[in-house]
Amino acid sequence: MIHRIAILGTGLLGTSVGLALRAAGFTGSISGWNRSAAGAEQARAMGAIDSILADPLEAARAAQVTMLAVPIYPTLDLMEQLAHVLGPDQLVTDVGSTKGQITAAAARLFNTPERAAFLPGHPMAGKERGGAELADANLFRNAVWLFTDDPAWQRSPTGTALVKEWRELVLAMGSRTIDIDPARHDEMVAWVSHLPQFTATALSALLDEQVGDAPELKDVGGRALREMTRLGASPFSMWRDIAATNTAAIEKALLTLEQRLQYIRENLRGPALRDEFEQANRFRSGS
Amino acid sequence: MIHRIAILGTGLLGTSVGLALRAAGFTGSISGWNRSAAGAEQARAMGAIDSILADPLEAARAAQVTMLAVPIYPTLDLMEQLAHVLGPDQLVTDVGSTKGQITAAAARLFNTPERAAFLPGHPMAGKERGGAELADANLFRNAVWLFTDDPAWQRSPTGTALVKEWRELVLAMGSRTIDIDPARHDEMVAWVSHLPQFTATALSALLDEQVGDAPELKDVGGRALREMTRLGASPFSMWRDIAATNTAAIEKALLTLEQRLQYIRENLRGPALRDEFEQANRFRSGS
Repeated sequence: MIHRIAILGTGLLGTSVGLALRAAGFTGSISGWNRSAAGAEQARAMGAIDSILADPLEAARAAQVTMLAVPIYPTLDLMEQLAHVLGPDQLVTDVGSTKGQITAAAARLFNTPERAAFLPGHPMAGKERGGAELADANLFRNAVWLFTDDPAWQRSPTGTALVKEWRELVLAMGSRTIDIDPARHDEMVAWVSHLPQFTATALSALLDEQVGDAPELKDVGGRALREMTRLGASPFSMWRDIAATNTAAIEKALLTLEQRLQYIRENLRGPALRDEFEQANRFRSGS
Repeated sequence: MIHRIAILGTGLLGTSVGLALRAAGFTGSISGWNRSAAGAEQARAMGAIDSILADPLEAARAAQVTMLAVPIYPTLDLMEQLAHVLGPDQLVTDVGSTKGQITAAAARLFNTPERAAFLPGHPMAGKERGGAELADANLFRNAVWLFTDDPAWQRSPTGTALVKEWRELVLAMGSRTIDIDPARHDEMVAWVSHLPQFTATALSALLDEQVGDAPELKDVGGRALREMTRLGASPFSMWRDIAATNTAAIEKALLTLEQRLQYIRENLRGPALRDEFEQANRFRSGS
């Protein structure tokens, strides 16, 4: 049934969705819009989209399914605008990294029998740098694609059918899907995604200050240092919105890590250090 | 000139040195000793050593070059014992991860015209788990091998020649060598090696506590989480001695990271977060 898709935002994720849809055998049209024309041209050159539209609302109006693949605040802005121009035979979905505000907006603006459907989604896939040029048809293969759908939403029959079919396309892109409550989602990603990112950012910024003028020391650190700071390359443009829309959960995770580091610092010569290593070993062994 | 080497400790590093020496074309004898017989048998089965001796002092006495590849405190113990049984035609070297105490012991116990030479070394290579079975002839390829040699030491002519030849063997194993002051070494590795390790340990232990009972969340975290916690698998048996012999420098590094995390936590919605990301980006781009 889905044969007209619009991708709004042809960065790493949007362009990868286009490529993955084609790899999964989707033969319908994929139009694209991007804030910068160069990113859209790149996505078209790679075959992720087949046409470029200058107006995101126009692109969405002509599509059955609109995929929002922009940072969180632009996603919320587009949701406000799209709610008034789309109808019950259309579906909007997104890839935002926090789901509390987006899911609340979906409940407020979409998902009634008279309005377009909105399926809040979050593919746990990415690279430390963005941009269409790094897009990859296999980016979502073996990844988890989270949905914060609400079973209480009363969608139109067409909206319900489009949601079902979009979920099948996500599986066809190679992802595993998990449905989760939006508040639980935001709490969970604070631990397993946002905390690792801000830790890498803090460590990288600190090391830049301490040894940034001695590049040979990075070689001394070797693979371990490279891995622990790889996420330091992540762009602020993406993480600003995450920090601003999941602040309380990230504050809690950071404070807990600060306390844990302090505990290790105060026990470098004590028996408690063994327990810390053993608990860390357990996390890695999965037992 | 070197044709009889003893390796005391055939774990990951000791066994890898044996394999790397063979790969580099060393054709002399390599004897081995290990605290557990199974590790020595494994090293012999892999071709890293050609004979196993039950007494480390006897193994060292029969060798021209003795490589100590045990944790730091056992290294210091062996240094005490070896100083009394070796002579000026012999060289001892080590792979200890902190160099302050070992270099001080080398000055006190070795490196006079009448005594054996001691060259304190530290190859920046390893894996997150130890053991002979993970040994690799290429472990030191493209790694940095640090030395905290002291130009003031008055070694015997043979000792001086053995040091020179051992340095050539290290280059032949594929490493780049850097000479550095031991205090500067310990301060530097606190930043680029020990801080990343204790950060990964704290993060892994914390996540075990928070999400350890929900293994599917590790999949949600994906590659980023795997990388940031890989060092969580590191064994306490090795890190205990590092923590105990470089305590002040590690305390300082940990405290500085705690303060940096706190600063990020207090600025999640503020303009300072951009500066943190930009400084982290700089570290990764090397500019």
